[in-house]
Amino acid sequence: MIRVDKKLVTVKLGKASMQIAILGTGTVGRTMATGLAKLRHTITIGTRDVAATLARTEVDATANLTFTEWLAQHPTVRLAAYSDAASASEIVVNATPGGVSLAVLRAAGSSNLAGKVLIDIANPLDFSRGFPPTLNPGNTDSLGEQIQRGFPAARVVKTLNTMTAALMIDPGQAGTGDHTVFISGNAAAAKETVMQLLATLGHDDIIDLGSIETARASEMLMPIWLRLWEALGTPLLNFKIIR
Amino acid sequence: MIRVDKKLVTVKLGKASMQIAILGTGTVGRTMATGLAKLRHTITIGTRDVAATLARTEVDATANLTFTEWLAQHPTVRLAAYSDAASASEIVVNATPGGVSLAVLRAAGSSNLAGKVLIDIANPLDFSRGFPPTLNPGNTDSLGEQIQRGFPAARVVKTLNTMTAALMIDPGQAGTGDHTVFISGNAAAAKETVMQLLATLGHDDIIDLGSIETARASEMLMPIWLRLWEALGTPLLNFKIIR
Repeated sequence: MIRVDKKLVTVKLGKASMQIAILGTGTVGRTMATGLAKLRHTITIGTRDVAATLARTEVDATANLTFTEWLAQHPTVRLAAYSDAASASEIVVNATPGGVSLAVLRAAGSSNLAGKVLIDIANPLDFSRGFPPTLNPGNTDSLGEQIQRGFPAARVVKTLNTMTAALMIDPGQAGTGDHTVFISGNAAAAKETVMQLLATLGHDDIIDLGSIETARASEMLMPIWLRLWEALGTPLLNFKIIR
Repeated sequence: MIRVDKKLVTVKLGKASMQIAILGTGTVGRTMATGLAKLRHTITIGTRDVAATLARTEVDATANLTFTEWLAQHPTVRLAAYSDAASASEIVVNATPGGVSLAVLRAAGSSNLAGKVLIDIANPLDFSRGFPPTLNPGNTDSLGEQIQRGFPAARVVKTLNTMTAALMIDPGQAGTGDHTVFISGNAAAAKETVMQLLATLGHDDIIDLGSIETARASEMLMPIWLRLWEALGTPLLNFKIIR
């Protein structure tokens, strides 16, 4: 179902598969690892404690697998400590819950993120007051900006945070797949790299919102996204910008 | 360009044209008045001071007309004080800037709003820190909820606040016109009335988000809406929920 421009994929794969670290072992991290490994990139999933992650007995909601069972089904994917994953990669994906993202990135290490394309796909949702969660920081700051301020040498690109994990790697799972993905970031070249990566994942309507400050606008889609999930009874929904 | 179900319009017009008050004399109020008058509803525009409004010399950005010039082109539309407009109508539309909406509704009068369908199409944007504006109250409250709390006997329905005025009355001006309008409110019958009104205006993808609390979710679309206007160079854009 992935609606990929086959020529583009060939060009990208032909050119160079990339070393990509995915920080986060949950559904979002596993899904991104699956989609990017399928495109023949070299994937290292980063976690706090490798042994503890492999010993986990809880299963994820989507595939009903423990992390170790999931990993066994994805033999090309490697598991490593945050810092090892980041240092081994040219692109780092933040796929952790927004509330812990800054701590995870500190564990990955500033120097391991310097100069790297850091793709932030997280949302700073605060569930402490129940459902629906509120956004923290909210509408005068964003997680994307906090990450860019905290790691000034990284080239942060906010994207993919406005859809459920399944659609990130397979847009065709919602409607005909014709919907929009937003990007925000200060570095034009980093955004260009991410746009090419998004295109290979099947995204063909990519809107560049502007600087990383615009991440607050895409993060603020979460409240209606959550309400739409409730109203429509499925997370397989996305925003298409009609113009 | 209005993509209206002709049969539905005939039914509605055949049944009963409605008395509708539109509070607000700006572009949004004028546009809504134009669209609803075209559907043969009886429109009264509400303002603070009728004589002062008629004496204004400033023109609106869209049509380049003073209010009096605009009114002359719309002979079926009446101008009245907020309270007269509200008391004469069965439906009241809040088309004022969000920052003054509560004061305007107090001027319209609680008793004139009691039992009425109160359609809130405003957004609580705060421009005091420049562009882009922030949302006030933001993500733990909304203007829609503030209005419902302030006027508990009114039946508040939040809708149309996620698009530019031109699209409210003519969805076909963006793309093929196939995009989404959201509604939020506590009263099912009031939402039903509003959905029928929206359908006659040409909206054919209406999503009921739930109670008036969900107004905070639709109001939080404003930040990305403003960024998209900048990025795409046109306000003739809207969200379509693909599912």
